[in-house]
Amino acid sequence: MPSTKQVVLNAPLDMHLHLRDGEMLENIALCSAQTFSAAIIMPNLVPPVSTKEEVVAYKKRIEHAIADEKFTPYMTLFFKPSYDKVFLESVKDHITAIKLYPAGITTNSEGGVSGFDVEELRPALSAMAALGIPLCVHGETNGFVMDREAEFVSIYEKLASAFPDLKIIMEHITTKESVAALDKFENLYATITVHHLLITLDDVAGGMLQPHLFCKPIAKRPEDREALLKVALEAHPKVMFGSDSAPHPKHAKESCGCAAGVFTSPIALQLLTEIFEKNNVSFDKLQVFVSGNAQNIYGVTPPAKTVVLEKKPFKVPSNYNGVVPMYANETLAYRIKEVNHG
Amino acid sequence: MPSTKQVVLNAPLDMHLHLRDGEMLENIALCSAQTFSAAIIMPNLVPPVSTKEEVVAYKKRIEHAIADEKFTPYMTLFFKPSYDKVFLESVKDHITAIKLYPAGITTNSEGGVSGFDVEELRPALSAMAALGIPLCVHGETNGFVMDREAEFVSIYEKLASAFPDLKIIMEHITTKESVAALDKFENLYATITVHHLLITLDDVAGGMLQPHLFCKPIAKRPEDREALLKVALEAHPKVMFGSDSAPHPKHAKESCGCAAGVFTSPIALQLLTEIFEKNNVSFDKLQVFVSGNAQNIYGVTPPAKTVVLEKKPFKVPSNYNGVVPMYANETLAYRIKEVNHG
Repeated sequence: MPSTKQVVLNAPLDMHLHLRDGEMLENIALCSAQTFSAAIIMPNLVPPVSTKEEVVAYKKRIEHAIADEKFTPYMTLFFKPSYDKVFLESVKDHITAIKLYPAGITTNSEGGVSGFDVEELRPALSAMAALGIPLCVHGETNGFVMDREAEFVSIYEKLASAFPDLKIIMEHITTKESVAALDKFENLYATITVHHLLITLDDVAGGMLQPHLFCKPIAKRPEDREALLKVALEAHPKVMFGSDSAPHPKHAKESCGCAAGVFTSPIALQLLTEIFEKNNVSFDKLQVFVSGNAQNIYGVTPPAKTVVLEKKPFKVPSNYNGVVPMYANETLAYRIKEVNHG
Repeated sequence: MPSTKQVVLNAPLDMHLHLRDGEMLENIALCSAQTFSAAIIMPNLVPPVSTKEEVVAYKKRIEHAIADEKFTPYMTLFFKPSYDKVFLESVKDHITAIKLYPAGITTNSEGGVSGFDVEELRPALSAMAALGIPLCVHGETNGFVMDREAEFVSIYEKLASAFPDLKIIMEHITTKESVAALDKFENLYATITVHHLLITLDDVAGGMLQPHLFCKPIAKRPEDREALLKVALEAHPKVMFGSDSAPHPKHAKESCGCAAGVFTSPIALQLLTEIFEKNNVSFDKLQVFVSGNAQNIYGVTPPAKTVVLEKKPFKVPSNYNGVVPMYANETLAYRIKEVNHG
């Protein structure tokens, strides 16, 4: 009898995660905490997390939601140009990064940055660079939906050259233009989601309209997906896995005017394993993409956790506590066999 | 007291209309018949309308649904390469055009053409040219959703040059490439919808996902909309208004995997009037776009009907017999004051 193929991943990290708050946080936190060692937690609550008290309190609520799971929430603040050195020094031990949103660009980002004037941003960003706090950026302009990210690349480049000591992470990149920017500036990094490795706009709106595949940034063109796949599969040292898993209640996704966000936390590792296998890439590269690169870039040491996946059909549930995941009711090639700690 | 601004349109024509069948036909036929003089009726029923008996019977069902309204349904057949001269001669008095669908490209088009081999199509298309039957074409490949129509332009050009005596109508064009093709071949014409003059992909998927603006071809880029507006506003002699109004039940639009189609019949003339006014274009041009050009291109003389619109706020109903229209519950600048016959 042939043995079932197994893949072992050590300390998987999700470097871009929305855990939300309140009932939703309680409902979905374990979907990440059970299989990931740690995750960068996005701060776009209502109101956004922007004080030491808020970030400490939010972390406590997350720790409550994950109960006994060994999982480190890497906390972030919602960037404000008014952050100064004194404030950042007082908060730096409580956060791993700061997230910058252009104003009004995605869910709960109304209080974000509306101009990208280097001098206006200099006090905050220079202090972050000096303190070694990375800047995570949602890089979209308010232009035409297919152009927003490519248009933002010039802003990434402006920030990267103005603040060469600041680590800037281009979050959830979706275009070949962002991939190309990676190699132009030493201090530009990127996260890539699993869904952007799988889908294009065709999957969202090419046949029927698929609200559960609708996200921001929207999935782009086939050549963009190819560019993302290339750097993910080679575990390019400047790219990290970040799911951007973003739960919404079922009714908010399936009504008229559906909210943006794809929920992938509970299936991300299974999908990534399948993607690397299908492309005949060693799982060593997957290990680097899903953990090693992030450890190097952020300088973090996550808690030990070993996830064993096996090649057996896994039917994705229709929902996880009321949240519909990507590929609900479809069958994946890998399932999680066990998770070991320590 | 200033008098209310009025606009009078004579014999408005909708040169691309889906009236469906059965209960839906009964529910929505009057939305067209009350304000248009005539319309080209699409044949993509299940099964598609492809025999004389079927087209005669479908016309009777339409006439039943429109009751006493003075409205001519210009009937069409669903193109099959097997149509020969004998068949076409037998049916020509019952139809105004024949509609070609690439296989599987939109709602109920599974039986369409899957190759575009000129020699395979020659018997049918030569006979149509000889009999003066125009060919209406849904011009999309099965490529990436934003490229499908532009990719199809080479097929339009192949057909136009192989069959110079055949009038070919590029239906519901959405791209600058199709607009450019208009002037390259004498026998290429086009219909343009009202929604493609108003929206881009931004409106469908740039903010929240909007199922009621999802259609095929999908709305494209701002520069595409500009190209469409230019030829519509100048009433380019080769373009005609065709709504492509395509009703679906509310549940089919607002569920997971929403069907393609925008329902505009009852608001099309109000919207067109507003568009021409906003662009400071004489309503004489609107008259030509919405009736004159179609009469010239098709050689038809529609029944007399005069629609009087007045500039008074019109709140679009939430639904018409269960079908949600474009701009439901929003307020338009013009309303229909009266319709006169004879």
